[in-house]
Formats: sequence, C-alpha cells, structure tokens
Amino acid sequence: MTSSIQDQALQQVADIFDKHVPFHNLLGLDIKHYDINGVEVVIKMKPELIGNIHQNILHGGVTATLLDVVGGLTAFAGLVASRDDWTMEELQQRLTTLGTIDMRVDFLRPGRGERFTGTGTVIRAGNRVSVCKMELHNELGTHIAFGTGTYMVG
Amino acid sequence: MTSSIQDQALQQVADIFDKHVPFHNLLGLDIKHYDINGVEVVIKMKPELIGNIHQNILHGGVTATLLDVVGGLTAFAGLVASRDDWTMEELQQRLTTLGTIDMRVDFLRPGRGERFTGTGTVIRAGNRVSVCKMELHNELGTHIAFGTGTYMVG
Amino acid sequence: MTSSIQDQALQQVADIFDKHVPFHNLLGLDIKHYDINGVEVVIKMKPELIGNIHQNILHGGVTATLLDVVGGLTAFAGLVASRDDWTMEELQQRLTTLGTIDMRVDFLRPGRGERFTGTGTVIRAGNRVSVCKMELHNELGTHIAFGTGTYMVG
Amino acid sequence: MTSSIQDQALQQVADIFDKHVPFHNLLGLDIKHYDINGVEVVIKMKPELIGNIHQNILHGGVTATLLDVVGGLTAFAGLVASRDDWTMEELQQRLTTLGTIDMRVDFLRPGRGERFTGTGTVIRAGNRVSVCKMELHNELGTHIAFGTGTYMVG
Repeated sequence: MTSSIQDQALQQVADIFDKHVPFHNLLGLDIKHYDINGVEVVIKMKPELIGNIHQNILHGGVTATLLDVVGGLTAFAGLVASRDDWTMEELQQRLTTLGTIDMRVDFLRPGRGERFTGTGTVIRAGNRVSVCKMELHNELGTHIAFGTGTYMVG
Repeated sequence: MTSSIQDQALQQVADIFDKHVPFHNLLGLDIKHYDINGVEVVIKMKPELIGNIHQNILHGGVTATLLDVVGGLTAFAGLVASRDDWTMEELQQRLTTLGTIDMRVDFLRPGRGERFTGTGTVIRAGNRVSVCKMELHNELGTHIAFGTGTYMVG
Repeated sequence: MTSSIQDQALQQVADIFDKHVPFHNLLGLDIKHYDINGVEVVIKMKPELIGNIHQNILHGGVTATLLDVVGGLTAFAGLVASRDDWTMEELQQRLTTLGTIDMRVDFLRPGRGERFTGTGTVIRAGNRVSVCKMELHNELGTHIAFGTGTYMVG
Repeated sequence: MTSSIQDQALQQVADIFDKHVPFHNLLGLDIKHYDINGVEVVIKMKPELIGNIHQNILHGGVTATLLDVVGGLTAFAGLVASRDDWTMEELQQRLTTLGTIDMRVDFLRPGRGERFTGTGTVIRAGNRVSVCKMELHNELGTHIAFGTGTYMVG
C-alpha cells in the first residue's frame, strides 16, 4: 500500500510533466499512468514528429526524448517508493535535483506506427543516483528502442 | 580539395536536413555549415523548447536530438571524404541507409543560453559503421553536453 | 530444431572461447552452455580477480570482460540462428569479422560472491550489426551488472 | 600549486592502484604518472592478455579495464583538485566511495601494439558524481579505444 503522500507527490509530478513542460506540449507527450510501480508515457504520431519523409518514421530525437522522460519518472518513482515516511517538502526538494546524468539509446527498429508507448524499470536504486532501463514500443507491440539512463535523484 | 560530386552531395544533404525534415522545422534546427571537414548545427532557444519552466533550460530531448543530428551528418561527411571517386547515385544510395544504431549522451551542465551549437568528429571511420563524438556548447562557449554515437553508413 | 551445421559451428566457437583465448584462461572464464538460444558464461572468484582488497569484490574490468564475451557470443548465436542454410565456411568467415563496436556497462551492485554468471539476449538482429543486452548475477541471484553492446557480425 | 595534502593523497592512491590491487597485478597495469592534472596508465602486451590468437590483439576486456581505471583515477584527481583545503581524512573517506556507475567503451581499432597508454579528462566535475572521457593509444600513437564513464566520488 502506498501512503497518501507518495500518491500525491507522484500525481503532482505527472501533472507537471503532462501539462506544464513546454517541450512535452510541443511533442504531445502524454503521461498515461504514473504510480510507484511505474510509468506509461505515450506519444501519438503526427506529421511534425517525422524524421524521414520518405519512410514516415518518428525522428530519433523524439524517441530519445520519450525514453529520457520515462527514465526520469521511473527513477523518481523508485525514490518515492524507497521510503514510506517522506514529507511532501522532502519530495518536492528531491524533485528539484532530479536530472539525467547520462543516457544510452539503442535504436532497434524504424519508428513506424501510430502510437508509441514508453515504459521503464529501476535497475539501480540509490539515494543519490539511480539507473533505469527504458523501452519504446508501437501500438502493435514492436520494440522500437531501448534505453539505459543514469539519474541524479538527490 | 574536394570534388564537385562530394560538395554537391553534402549540399543536398544539408538542404534536406535544414528544410525538409519536419521535426527539424518544429525545433528550428539550422544547419549553419556542412562540408567534408565537419558540420555546425544550431538551435536558438525559444519557449517551446524549455524543459524546466523554473530554470528556463533546454529540454534534454532537444540536446539529444541536436547531438544525434550532428553525429549522423558527421558520419556521412566522413564517408563522403573517404573516397574521391563516388558517383552521385552511390552517395544517394548510402544516404538511404544512414541511421543511428546507438548513442550515449552525457548531460554536463544545465542547458542555459540563447543559442546552442553542435559540432562533431569521426573517431571510427568505416565503410559500414562509423562512430562519432559530438559536443554541444551555448553562445558563451559553455560545454553543455557530450555525445558518442554509432552510425550505419552503408 | 537446429541443423547439424549450426550446432557444430557454435560448438567450435564455444571450444575456442573456453580453451584457446589466452585472456579467458588467465581469468578462468568458463563457457558453461552455448546453443542458438543463448549462452552461459561463468567466472569463479579467485584472489587475482579482486579489485578492492578491503571489500573482496570483483574488479569492474572482470565484470566488463565477462559481459563483453557474453554479448559477442549472444550476437553470434543470433546470427547463426537467423538462417538454417549456412555452410560451415560461411560461418567461419563470419566469425573472423565478429567484434565489439561499443559497449555500455552499468555497475549495479558490488561484485560480491563466489561464482558469477553472465547471460544475454539479442535485441537487434542484423546481418551486419547486432545489439545485445547482457546481465551478470552472482550465485545468490544478485544482479551485479547490466550491459548493452553493439557487435559487428558480418 | 598543489598542497602537500593533495600530492600525498594522490601519491597514496597511485601506490594502491599500482601495487595493491590484485587484478592490476595480474594484468601488469602500471600507473606511470598521477597528479591533479591527470593520469597515465600503461599496460605492456604479454601473451596472457591476447584476445585473438590469430591476430595477436589485446582482449577487449583489457581495454575496458584500463579505460575504467583511468576514468576512476581521473575523476578522483578532479575531486582532489576542486578544493585546496581537504584533510587527509576527508580524502581517504572519499576514496572509499569512489566507484564506477556506468561506462561506455568504443573499440575504434584492433588492439595491436607493444605498449598501451590510457589517459583521461574530467568533463563533468561534481561533488557527488563526475564524468570523464578516456582514451587508449598504442606506442605508435594509434587511437585504439575511447571511453566515457560516470563515477561516484562522494
């Protein structure tokens, strides 16, 4: 069971990432689901996101953006889940230090599709630094890209 | 000295990347310079590219996009420079196979600034696969991000 | 079902990697299992492999070595599995071009344990380039390290 | 000018890495030079370090090991250089937390040569986390490998 503080904090973060980050709005990035078990971030294909007009595929930069957002949210959810006695102030403070240190993206298949979903898992859960792996699939379940990211969480 | 074919091919690619890639247009990505010695890609800060409204910094996804574009153009320039007897048909064929296999991005400092310039260098020049390192600086010369990318070139 | 040629080729490779690579002998690297479904590579802890004498943990270079070997063998098994009409000559030719282009290693937990096992999966199966993810666990199932590698296979 | 404390601390670390890490002794790894401006780590080719007996080239795991050691020492030198009022106790404490979080290795050319030298540079200097780039050259100046590593320094 999650505490009300944990739920509230993640809900606030989802709201910020969904509505108040200008670049997310430009791409149409949508936080479909976010709780301490993970995140689901979705981007629908639209003409402005195309990287190759002959093949109608998603630009690799959109893929990288989506994986990076997924990794950051996954790392933060892991931090929130690591204790059940956080105060809201502590979590808001931690959010200000959240940032990507480095990320690797593996572009596995061309970004064809209508709807791209990113998900992630924490593989190193630290109080200062966490590492996540991330995946991007299209609406048919095709595995488009894989990522690994190292995040500052404190 | 470069052959006319080499110059023409790179000019065509610069033109495509500068004007005919929808996602580059969305970001305002500008190919300032492109020849067999390298590339200079510029993005000017604008409100839609912000990742953190409290700090007014460039979204990491924009940084990753710019480094990836720089790496692809750098790898292709290296391929073009590797022979002086290319035909235009051969180079156009090679362009269709150009693609990122994987990329690492190191986010070194917050993306503050008005104008971000990306440059790159080939560190492994192959006939099939090339590896580049890429850098992003702001208008004050601050080193914002570093990247390493592996590109399919044939 | 696998053809006799596939089985024979992988058996030969396992034999070379297990007995005829000087650095594998120095480390005591053991190819426990190798077929078209994957590989299991084992290293037993011994004093010479220690990286930190106060903590008795495996040197990160041993971890990196093991993940790289796992990735190469996984990529080659994927190539062998991709067709069932290989000739032995073709596979021996491919083996000569097998090589790591780049690799990322995530060191997740200290390398404590008696026996470390590396396993891998192909995530991009190409005729020229393949990408694998690799994991290292100790004898208690603790996840010590994660890797992603890009391999030339043709 | 460096303080006596800084010099002493780096000299102690060089001594440990040069003589008291079992895996470094197994490989014959030699800390040629270490001060706050950087490090030079050398490995001489010997039969046990070979990865491919037909081509007599260094095993990729040796390359990865050397780059990782260079990165760790470079990150620590950067930390030491960041303040001139360290006490020896503080630096010894920091040394116990020094560790690689993740590393990328780009294998640029076959590891041919008699003597391999690794050098590095800090590209992100933090109080908790630093990022370095590393290079490996042989005695002829051939650039064999490039690396990027993220290190915990506090």
